[in-house]
Amino acid sequence: MAASAPSSSASSSSSTGGEADPNTTNLRPPGSSYDAWCGVAHGCTRKLGMKICGFLQKNNSMEERTRMVTSFKERTAKNLQLTCDDNMGGDARFKRSENDFSNLFARDLLPAKNGEEPTMQFLLEVVEILTNYVKKTFDRSTKVLDFHHPHQLLEGMEGFNLELSEQPESLEQILVDCRDTLKYGVRTGHPRFFNQLSTGLDIVGLAGEWLTSTANTNMFTYEIAPVFVLMEQLTLKKMREIVGWPDGEGDGIFSPGGAISNMYSVMIARYKFFPEVKTKGMTAAPRLILFTSEHSHYSIKKASAALGLGTENLILLKTDERGRVIPADLEAKVIEAKQKGSVPLFVNATAGTTVYGAFDPINEIADICEKYNIWLHVDGAWGGGLLMSRKHRHKLSGVERANSVTWNPHKMMGVPLQCSAILVRERGLLQGCNSMCAGYLFQPDKQYDVTYDTGDKAIQCGRHVDIFKFWLMWKAKGTVGFEQHIDKCLDLSAYLYNKIKNREGYEMVFDGEPQHTNVCFWYFPPSLRSIPNGEESRERLHKVAPKIKAMMMESGTTMVGYQPQGEKVNFFRMVISNPAATMSDIDFLIEEIERLGQDL
Amino acid sequence: MAASAPSSSASSSSSTGGEADPNTTNLRPPGSSYDAWCGVAHGCTRKLGMKICGFLQKNNSMEERTRMVTSFKERTAKNLQLTCDDNMGGDARFKRSENDFSNLFARDLLPAKNGEEPTMQFLLEVVEILTNYVKKTFDRSTKVLDFHHPHQLLEGMEGFNLELSEQPESLEQILVDCRDTLKYGVRTGHPRFFNQLSTGLDIVGLAGEWLTSTANTNMFTYEIAPVFVLMEQLTLKKMREIVGWPDGEGDGIFSPGGAISNMYSVMIARYKFFPEVKTKGMTAAPRLILFTSEHSHYSIKKASAALGLGTENLILLKTDERGRVIPADLEAKVIEAKQKGSVPLFVNATAGTTVYGAFDPINEIADICEKYNIWLHVDGAWGGGLLMSRKHRHKLSGVERANSVTWNPHKMMGVPLQCSAILVRERGLLQGCNSMCAGYLFQPDKQYDVTYDTGDKAIQCGRHVDIFKFWLMWKAKGTVGFEQHIDKCLDLSAYLYNKIKNREGYEMVFDGEPQHTNVCFWYFPPSLRSIPNGEESRERLHKVAPKIKAMMMESGTTMVGYQPQGEKVNFFRMVISNPAATMSDIDFLIEEIERLGQDL
Repeated sequence: MAASAPSSSASSSSSTGGEADPNTTNLRPPGSSYDAWCGVAHGCTRKLGMKICGFLQKNNSMEERTRMVTSFKERTAKNLQLTCDDNMGGDARFKRSENDFSNLFARDLLPAKNGEEPTMQFLLEVVEILTNYVKKTFDRSTKVLDFHHPHQLLEGMEGFNLELSEQPESLEQILVDCRDTLKYGVRTGHPRFFNQLSTGLDIVGLAGEWLTSTANTNMFTYEIAPVFVLMEQLTLKKMREIVGWPDGEGDGIFSPGGAISNMYSVMIARYKFFPEVKTKGMTAAPRLILFTSEHSHYSIKKASAALGLGTENLILLKTDERGRVIPADLEAKVIEAKQKGSVPLFVNATAGTTVYGAFDPINEIADICEKYNIWLHVDGAWGGGLLMSRKHRHKLSGVERANSVTWNPHKMMGVPLQCSAILVRERGLLQGCNSMCAGYLFQPDKQYDVTYDTGDKAIQCGRHVDIFKFWLMWKAKGTVGFEQHIDKCLDLSAYLYNKIKNREGYEMVFDGEPQHTNVCFWYFPPSLRSIPNGEESRERLHKVAPKIKAMMMESGTTMVGYQPQGEKVNFFRMVISNPAATMSDIDFLIEEIERLGQDL
Repeated sequence: MAASAPSSSASSSSSTGGEADPNTTNLRPPGSSYDAWCGVAHGCTRKLGMKICGFLQKNNSMEERTRMVTSFKERTAKNLQLTCDDNMGGDARFKRSENDFSNLFARDLLPAKNGEEPTMQFLLEVVEILTNYVKKTFDRSTKVLDFHHPHQLLEGMEGFNLELSEQPESLEQILVDCRDTLKYGVRTGHPRFFNQLSTGLDIVGLAGEWLTSTANTNMFTYEIAPVFVLMEQLTLKKMREIVGWPDGEGDGIFSPGGAISNMYSVMIARYKFFPEVKTKGMTAAPRLILFTSEHSHYSIKKASAALGLGTENLILLKTDERGRVIPADLEAKVIEAKQKGSVPLFVNATAGTTVYGAFDPINEIADICEKYNIWLHVDGAWGGGLLMSRKHRHKLSGVERANSVTWNPHKMMGVPLQCSAILVRERGLLQGCNSMCAGYLFQPDKQYDVTYDTGDKAIQCGRHVDIFKFWLMWKAKGTVGFEQHIDKCLDLSAYLYNKIKNREGYEMVFDGEPQHTNVCFWYFPPSLRSIPNGEESRERLHKVAPKIKAMMMESGTTMVGYQPQGEKVNFFRMVISNPAATMSDIDFLIEEIERLGQDL
């Protein structure tokens, strides 16, 4: 235990990080209340108690004690003594220490000499802030957000000043900043936060992220991330098995998000068919065409721009009224592109579109891709999670025929941000496409099997550890736990759909039960219901969702997204991935929309 | 306080998350030891105490109490009672609860009914693991790593099994997994970890990461990350001021690492000169040429491959013997490219090369870029931090003439991974280059000033919050704190250089004091010192660094990098960015190299 090492038993709270006054050492008055206090402190928790005792043994003059006991310990001490040892003479001596972080600075923390005590106190204080936040996040009487406009926050809120300065601020101010940052933020884990595809606050995932940041390492080599590198390999293999590739064969990597994962897929497809582009650039290839649905995520378009293909060479495919690609349109456009002398390179099939939650018919698309020798990518950033559900995975039927798959556990599976995987059926392509063999990282003459140094597959160099929280959640929930979560979310969206499909004032954006948890609908305030369909009605309806959303945010009660789509005016898009949401929260959302929209 | 809400005062430790047996409610025997226990518990910490008391008031039969008190509280209770209340009848009743996490599962945590107590206990247990890890990380008697080969970890170490399974594991196992993950990892914050450019464990940065994961939000809109979006803007502005752009004008974004930041710079340069590439692809541009030093980071090459320019169109520039670009070589190659009908697009000047730590002469390069109208990017991923130091920032003299700058606070400034900024002098380019105006995120009809929705500038969609830890560290240290850290690291590297430059058995890879903290040297074991220079000597020397490194890792005492460079055989590259390192650690490294290399 470090607690028994000499370096850890002294402490300091002076602002300059100075040591305890040597004159006071070993001057404890015989028979003082020190022993009683220490015995009590010892009881608080075994480890904290030992720490406090060690600390007092070194710093036992009254003055020193007063200076050094910080608020966390002080509360402990004060409460303990009131309970157990009223003979200690009240709490006067501890009074000053309520403010002790005001005399502590970052420079007093580890690795500073005697920095262990303040470090532990500071971290525990932070944890108290965080655990309080966690508790309140799940408490429906807490607001989802406390909305302020940018100029308000920039002007500074009651001592919360965002400006950076030359001189350090005390740890007390830092703790205030932590509290305020959370106060003015948005509780994405709140049971009534439905605004994005990523919602919820998984406790095991959170613990995993805390550990990840404490380990603070980098995925590029086994050398400095042995456990995480192996976890990534095993987890990717498991995901490939679930996709349906034999024995989980293939390759993959975790990337900083679905957009980057989708970008990988285009890069790999290009490398597969035109590997010389890597060295010679796009001039070495004919005109390459990408295909994706008009409902697909904009990251495919971002990738076509970034990678030098050009957004005009991304052909948008027609969808049916539920947002699913019409395969005949794909084939027609493939033929058309070929007739123009272009080369159809890549088709993206979306498994779970962003707005409608639609699943493109993968098998029919795969038939066309096989016929014309085109790379098939499945963007399952949002819908990939349904592969974990025996009940719902049929929606991705044919995914095993894809050449690559994007799957974001940070969306439907509730893993904290960021956690996105790109899976590739053919081994070696990722490496071939991206490797540059940097000598300073990927030395071939290491003592271990360097095939575990997977960093050269990435377009990144340093790469954040995104795997641990996911691995830990999988351990903690089991595959069945993810399945239950997904089934529950889909049940909830069915509940919402059934609740509003025939309800007065509502109109569904598309007919039929949604494929994913996306429920898209218009709400007509009473004043609009009597107006005949037409331009005036459309214009007024277009303004309803933004107005209700603004009022929601200002009252802080719930959050849900809205947008127009094609010719359709603004509608609400409800999505459910939050494990904390229940039917009562769905009911609340509807009540809230009606309450706020009543008089529009 | 949530603690006083009805939902938080009950608890459960049963594996199924069941509620307390209603039959036991309010059946507390009068005069039982409940009051004494509660009074004591109350003393532990104010909040924990209240929680425990609330919990006992609701669940006060002996059986319930026994079932529900988990190990964290149990230790508290046991110690307290031993100290303060020996009449309570010993600790027999609490015995079972040492193992209570074995009956708790992820499904028992929040948002489960009665999940608050187990959640708090679980998180506190995790924090205990993490704070112990933090303490040991700074303790020099702790190993830097406990090395195992991949096959050993894959086979499973004493109950640490990496395989994922169908069924959930208990929280006790999850806690074991957390401990083991740290045990078999690498302590990148250890004072003797010198292996990468990113080292150290900053306590305030760590607290910032813990908060970031607890907030678990996404940078794409002000709507869901109001505080973080503003912090990013203010911090980027401050960085641009430090770069030297008037009033900090310009643009920028935090990206998932230096490689992506460098990729941004190439994309933006291309967009500035050939905006039609965005829509039409690379065929709309002439042959574009990029220039970078042969010592520059491999991410420039990765970018040229990914973006469709081709690695052959990346021209490597000659350097002097210290690894700095020779400007005359740049000009000659620019002229040559133009003569061949290509268009010189982009020059990367490195501020702090990866291996030598060299700073390219930015002003001389900027003169050439201005003369030929070429985009100048400065890759200060590693060396950018020196801008914070009045003593060392002259090494980046001319950086204010750059069109874009990469600067990774997660390297020299000790910010936890990931934290990398791309700064752009001209406003609007990032947006123009990358925006796709996704309607579901960037609605123009929001109630707030939507110019704060910065997500469309990114090539990502979801984007991790990398700013908060950095902002918090800046608040806590002040600009002066970063300066002190940087000056100290450079002093330490000067100390190392002076120690070994004339020491027997050492040879410097290049002459003169290093510009950055990189100290590159060969160590000749005694057996090699008498061998004349030649092929045999080279071959044997080439094997020395890998062998010593392997022994270092197996003994776990320290870690330092090595690599070959060009014609030069393997040499050690020492880098110092770790705030915990002292002269004694430098001395230790040298002793260790000599101890391990003695008999080679």
